[in-house]
Amino acid sequence: MNKRIVVALGGNAIQPPGVPATAENQFAAVRATCQHLAEMIRLGYQVIVTHGNGPQVGNILLQNEEARDVVPPMPLDVCGAQTQGFIGYMIQQSMGNTLPEVTVASVVTQVEVSPLDPAFDRPTKPIGPFYTQHEAEKLEREKDFVMVEDSGRGWRRVVPSPTPLAIVEKEAISTLLAANMLVIASGGGGIPVVRDSEGRLSGVEAVIDKDLAAEKLAADVDAQELMILTDVDAVAINWGTPQQEFLGELSLQQARNFQRQGHFKAGSMGPKVEAACRFVENGGETAIIASLSSALSALQGNAGTRFVG
Amino acid sequence: MNKRIVVALGGNAIQPPGVPATAENQFAAVRATCQHLAEMIRLGYQVIVTHGNGPQVGNILLQNEEARDVVPPMPLDVCGAQTQGFIGYMIQQSMGNTLPEVTVASVVTQVEVSPLDPAFDRPTKPIGPFYTQHEAEKLEREKDFVMVEDSGRGWRRVVPSPTPLAIVEKEAISTLLAANMLVIASGGGGIPVVRDSEGRLSGVEAVIDKDLAAEKLAADVDAQELMILTDVDAVAINWGTPQQEFLGELSLQQARNFQRQGHFKAGSMGPKVEAACRFVENGGETAIIASLSSALSALQGNAGTRFVG
Repeated sequence: MNKRIVVALGGNAIQPPGVPATAENQFAAVRATCQHLAEMIRLGYQVIVTHGNGPQVGNILLQNEEARDVVPPMPLDVCGAQTQGFIGYMIQQSMGNTLPEVTVASVVTQVEVSPLDPAFDRPTKPIGPFYTQHEAEKLEREKDFVMVEDSGRGWRRVVPSPTPLAIVEKEAISTLLAANMLVIASGGGGIPVVRDSEGRLSGVEAVIDKDLAAEKLAADVDAQELMILTDVDAVAINWGTPQQEFLGELSLQQARNFQRQGHFKAGSMGPKVEAACRFVENGGETAIIASLSSALSALQGNAGTRFVG
Repeated sequence: MNKRIVVALGGNAIQPPGVPATAENQFAAVRATCQHLAEMIRLGYQVIVTHGNGPQVGNILLQNEEARDVVPPMPLDVCGAQTQGFIGYMIQQSMGNTLPEVTVASVVTQVEVSPLDPAFDRPTKPIGPFYTQHEAEKLEREKDFVMVEDSGRGWRRVVPSPTPLAIVEKEAISTLLAANMLVIASGGGGIPVVRDSEGRLSGVEAVIDKDLAAEKLAADVDAQELMILTDVDAVAINWGTPQQEFLGELSLQQARNFQRQGHFKAGSMGPKVEAACRFVENGGETAIIASLSSALSALQGNAGTRFVG
């Protein structure tokens, strides 16, 4: 029986910064990423892939905005679903080309959140295009958007980032895993949905943190390991100061202590460390935070930061 | 053991003509469609859903066009993948709300075509927005698009419509079906891909007819029935003439004869009848062409056109 690992790909694994967001560039990045995933599979892991969708959903929102006079703009849940099709397709095709002996499937994934999640009272996650102050005020008035000024670059919409409670399609995902397939699921943190009093689901205007959703997915499929790939090699304390120190292995208690001391910022390492802690707390063996290029050595204990029980 | 039926939903089952293409209107149409699907399931059928994506991919192409100066336009395979996420999400959520006891999953689906398919020499399928003659000539020059004048309404791009050869994700689809789930697959005819001499897949600028892809899917999952839902109640010969006659049951031989006599037009009933014939030829029990509202009585033999061996 292979060890199961959920690998959460960051934005740079799909759309590298600084190059135009063409399909060609994104396919090229995904192909390179698939080489790393293939090495994990060769090591004997069963891989479940999840991924961010920031640049892609940002571009879809921009397309919606530019075409708003001719095509009704779609809500966030639908835009997120579109990115799951788009990115899932790129990964499943590239993975199949890299390792033809592995059967790959992408599952469109809803993730349930609570309508009472306090995040709905305090939208924090910036999404989509930048606007002028005038445009921002119009959107606040007409569409009830919450807009914030973003460090001199203009105004952006912020949406709630509620806690993932359940992977709605977990039975389908588990069934495919039991048949030894490589599954791509919960892209972009999943399509955020709430359940009403009669049990019916509907989409909400929110973005679920993809690493916290990855943790939920990893717990649901009984993965032994959770690997969160990002653009830095490891987690550090005192980040950006002369005392900066990269961390190799961390007990849950050490991690929670550093967290309380404020070492991990909300917009960057914070949710990744939180996801890693939750995974180990919920019975997972090891959570790893590492860079894409060091993924394989991190898996072998020679790079990245490892969170253990 | 339940009978398996592949149900191919036409555009009007998802986006009714004459209403704005908002998410709300599309969700409302999908909810109504799911009531019909639920009745089939209550009759004891295991349902596999596939669907068209004409209006949705048309709108995504229009959004790509309007935003082309700020977001690189995506190729057709990626736009098709986006619609699979979008429409799959709507159907899986609505179906889950309609019949909570059924587990539903959408699988992102590639469909293989031959790079040597003669369709690539003769693009026929109009897609996307209308252009002026001047714009059309520019696109022919700059992007190598094939543009045709569309009955006085302007110029449109036409793309090849090659024959579907294989459902790439059929193993994943079959695995979910074996676990008694309702599977949504091969939306929009599937994402068209070709295989190179080393076995690697890549997307192509083409649109596969969704009813022909539905037939391939139905054959691959050993469905006993294929149901193609459209906006007319049944197949007719002498369509639009005083001799027009709706057909109830047709043997394969009768169907092929009417086909040869030119009763079924390429842009409308042609591919549906062809898909129905192929299904019965390939060993399927019954193929049905009917309207969405008469789907249930068609299944019971009281409406629509039935193709039998």
